[in-house]
Amino acid sequence: MDGRNLIGQRYSALADDILRSFSPALQDVLEGHFPIASPEEVDAAFALATQAARTYGQTSGAERARFLRRIADEILALDDLLLTRAQGESALPLGRLRGERGRTVNQLRLFADLVEEGSWVNAVIDTAIPDRQPLPRADIRRLSVPIGPVVVFTASNFPLAFSTAGGDTASALAAGNPVIVKAHESHLGTNALVAAAIQKAARETGMPEGVFSSLNGTGPDLGQRLVRHPQAKAIAFTGSLRAGKAIFDAANQRPEPIPVFAEMGSINPVVLLPQALQARGEAIAQQYAQSVTLGVGQFCTNPGLLIAQEGPELTLFLTALGQALAQIPPALMLNPGICEHYEGARRAVLDREGVQLEAQVPAQAGEGGAALASVTARAFLQQPDLQEEVFGPFTLLVKCGDATERNAVIEALGGQLTATLIAEEAELEAATDLIAGLQEKVGRILFNGVPTGVEVSPAMHHGGPFPATTNAQFTSVGTGAIQRFVRPLTLQNWPAAQLPPALREGNPLGIWRLVNGVWGKD
Amino acid sequence: MDGRNLIGQRYSALADDILRSFSPALQDVLEGHFPIASPEEVDAAFALATQAARTYGQTSGAERARFLRRIADEILALDDLLLTRAQGESALPLGRLRGERGRTVNQLRLFADLVEEGSWVNAVIDTAIPDRQPLPRADIRRLSVPIGPVVVFTASNFPLAFSTAGGDTASALAAGNPVIVKAHESHLGTNALVAAAIQKAARETGMPEGVFSSLNGTGPDLGQRLVRHPQAKAIAFTGSLRAGKAIFDAANQRPEPIPVFAEMGSINPVVLLPQALQARGEAIAQQYAQSVTLGVGQFCTNPGLLIAQEGPELTLFLTALGQALAQIPPALMLNPGICEHYEGARRAVLDREGVQLEAQVPAQAGEGGAALASVTARAFLQQPDLQEEVFGPFTLLVKCGDATERNAVIEALGGQLTATLIAEEAELEAATDLIAGLQEKVGRILFNGVPTGVEVSPAMHHGGPFPATTNAQFTSVGTGAIQRFVRPLTLQNWPAAQLPPALREGNPLGIWRLVNGVWGKD
Repeated sequence: MDGRNLIGQRYSALADDILRSFSPALQDVLEGHFPIASPEEVDAAFALATQAARTYGQTSGAERARFLRRIADEILALDDLLLTRAQGESALPLGRLRGERGRTVNQLRLFADLVEEGSWVNAVIDTAIPDRQPLPRADIRRLSVPIGPVVVFTASNFPLAFSTAGGDTASALAAGNPVIVKAHESHLGTNALVAAAIQKAARETGMPEGVFSSLNGTGPDLGQRLVRHPQAKAIAFTGSLRAGKAIFDAANQRPEPIPVFAEMGSINPVVLLPQALQARGEAIAQQYAQSVTLGVGQFCTNPGLLIAQEGPELTLFLTALGQALAQIPPALMLNPGICEHYEGARRAVLDREGVQLEAQVPAQAGEGGAALASVTARAFLQQPDLQEEVFGPFTLLVKCGDATERNAVIEALGGQLTATLIAEEAELEAATDLIAGLQEKVGRILFNGVPTGVEVSPAMHHGGPFPATTNAQFTSVGTGAIQRFVRPLTLQNWPAAQLPPALREGNPLGIWRLVNGVWGKD
Repeated sequence: MDGRNLIGQRYSALADDILRSFSPALQDVLEGHFPIASPEEVDAAFALATQAARTYGQTSGAERARFLRRIADEILALDDLLLTRAQGESALPLGRLRGERGRTVNQLRLFADLVEEGSWVNAVIDTAIPDRQPLPRADIRRLSVPIGPVVVFTASNFPLAFSTAGGDTASALAAGNPVIVKAHESHLGTNALVAAAIQKAARETGMPEGVFSSLNGTGPDLGQRLVRHPQAKAIAFTGSLRAGKAIFDAANQRPEPIPVFAEMGSINPVVLLPQALQARGEAIAQQYAQSVTLGVGQFCTNPGLLIAQEGPELTLFLTALGQALAQIPPALMLNPGICEHYEGARRAVLDREGVQLEAQVPAQAGEGGAALASVTARAFLQQPDLQEEVFGPFTLLVKCGDATERNAVIEALGGQLTATLIAEEAELEAATDLIAGLQEKVGRILFNGVPTGVEVSPAMHHGGPFPATTNAQFTSVGTGAIQRFVRPLTLQNWPAAQLPPALREGNPLGIWRLVNGVWGKD
């Protein structure tokens, strides 16, 4: 494992300052020195990326697919070395990390399939109408083209699937863009191993140098420098509202503003309707105890807010949920900072007016103990701060007097990644306003399930209105994620021989195209 | 013609201040009083729009199509009343305004056809896989949903096609969003007539009140208030970089930032290669004299920058272009402010170091006289201000010593709506770098044509990297424009009976959908 900055195919360590990795389990630093990237090294990475952008942007889908699949293979080849390091740096169980590695590799292969098939470029062709009156129509052809060097901020809670070779990197590379990764300070070694795997894959599949670089540093220093760099063309980020908003603001204040796709978490409201609680309150409590504590609550889709009408079935549910949570042993959180932050944020909620602690699981130092609290709708509505995400195994129940109050609570919510409706089908007819209200707030709405667990598939939308993300129009999970890193380009009266294959006569790539208003592959 | 603010179906005039329309031809105010919208009236328009959003967002494609087509019919029914008023306020020739009305009506009908057909919602379905290992896959379905109330800023240079019922309003309404229009101060009467037509169409097709409002006011006052209003969900703007950037900044600084689709103009570089100039320099000069002066140069795709290599064929072309421009009589500009601005901006360019006046057409007060200037590549590269748009019939030729210098000029350009390559096909093989460089800067690239004239069709992309627009990922012209005003929503395990028609089993709408990775209409 080489902890230095990786600039194209070259390792570099110009600055004296280093970062170290910390093990939450050992309560000690792990081996490895990670020199902080200097401004010169940032410039060097961008110079290479900008140079690579043109060549790499013109590679075929087949070539990019080979590169992405090779990254997946190289990650698998790291085997236990990677899993052990990731476990050391994140305290996540090996089984979970093995699953996450599978997700990472599958994502890379999914995007490989997508670009190999090729229809993702949204080719549209309007052929010329020379004899149209009063004016002839030109030949007009459009496709999506890469946006340029993309900066990827890695996420604390997914050291593999949302990090160095995660969904952001995979989709940005698939779209034809060079990527510069900011290594996460919590898993520097994991990052170094995966970055080397990407580097090797790039070399061995003949990709231009600079298609990938990885730099070490802190958010306020390196992060801001990356966002403000004139050669950066888009930003992908997964993390806190505070950090994501700072990146968004910096990107908008550049002389040339650039798009920021920041997924900043959510409290993922769950609305529990009375008949469902009556019919299967105990089972729902069991299910939700698992969802709240999954990954020690360190998921952006963690259900942090339950909304229900007061009644005997709710009282029973609350007791059952508290008891179910008590059965789940606490576990180490990702790092001491996150644990400290969890405890502080939980305490802050519990200190608010009208908030009542319902259950709390005792935990050792570094561990996240689950907690359940409740508050009246009235108190919730009066204190907008109660909407702030508590990152960890915590959930707050809002008790509503009636359906009107419940709808007012939903109306008052900020944008969310998900909302879940727990209901019997018979309850839905009277819930039209509720459903419409929920849909206006979220990117994904679930029926009788849990929001944790985000499928990587074409129909997935992992996004939502601000503050869930900085751009509600794109997803960060699933094949749609590739659309973040392209822009349309129209070629008018372009010489046939110079057209990109996706737009040529005869459709040599055999992709889906809209030709004169008709979809087809002919 | 009622000049008051139109709030849903109600006329309103709470404030004492009024605006008046000015006729560039008469050099006098036109009839009609246009009271400025008060803060209370702005709130009332947004309250109605927010209320209408839910109902209107759930109308079918067929219902919206009926509404849009009725707007087109009502605009045509205004007949000479509208054309005469638009001519009075803009000084544009009647023939041009008749054509623009045709474009406006066609746009409305195009979006009507689009939403009636229905595939534009990008329906994607991944059906459940209950027995998948290690975890089952849920049923996941995605479609595009309306974004909420859209504020439309009308454009000075298209009183019909980019204004009250122009492409922004048509696409926002088609997507299912209420629209609040800020009337343009230059054509308040035209706006009032078209707003009344939309109001009538809404009433007679049974659309919810608040689906459309029209307010009078100034940019810095009403404009900023509209952008900052908490119930605004997206902004569409066509106009200057200064005004567009102010809107973009205000929208990003809101507690809840919202997307701004601002099309802010461009200098639309035209690269002339030597063989083309040799073969048909005279014809190109004639063609470009027409393009530079079309609409008195008041088009966002006006070719404001010519780039060519020095040589005898360029000298001949320059003379021919100057002579061709001199043949075209100057005409009144849209308003005295624009004319004054044109003269000032042109003078500023001519005062720059190394800029040489090649031809200038004398003009009366209020008219825009065409002008042609030249500058060396060296001087152009040293003075980035020379890239600022001169809105009017002006073009600047950059003389390059060789291809390397020409590519450096292109590399130095900011984002553009269009670029045009004038070349013989034989010249293209050696122009690979040139073409790649141009494509990185623009939203549309043309071969042997003129950038003026933007086709309204599926393959059109009218957009481009900053500063051409604030969002390079969307177009403001063509059917793609509808995608600006929607966001994806995923429904997971949603009860079959509650699914929107676009996502139902059996595809009752008969639209194109991606089902388990396969495109089809079944």
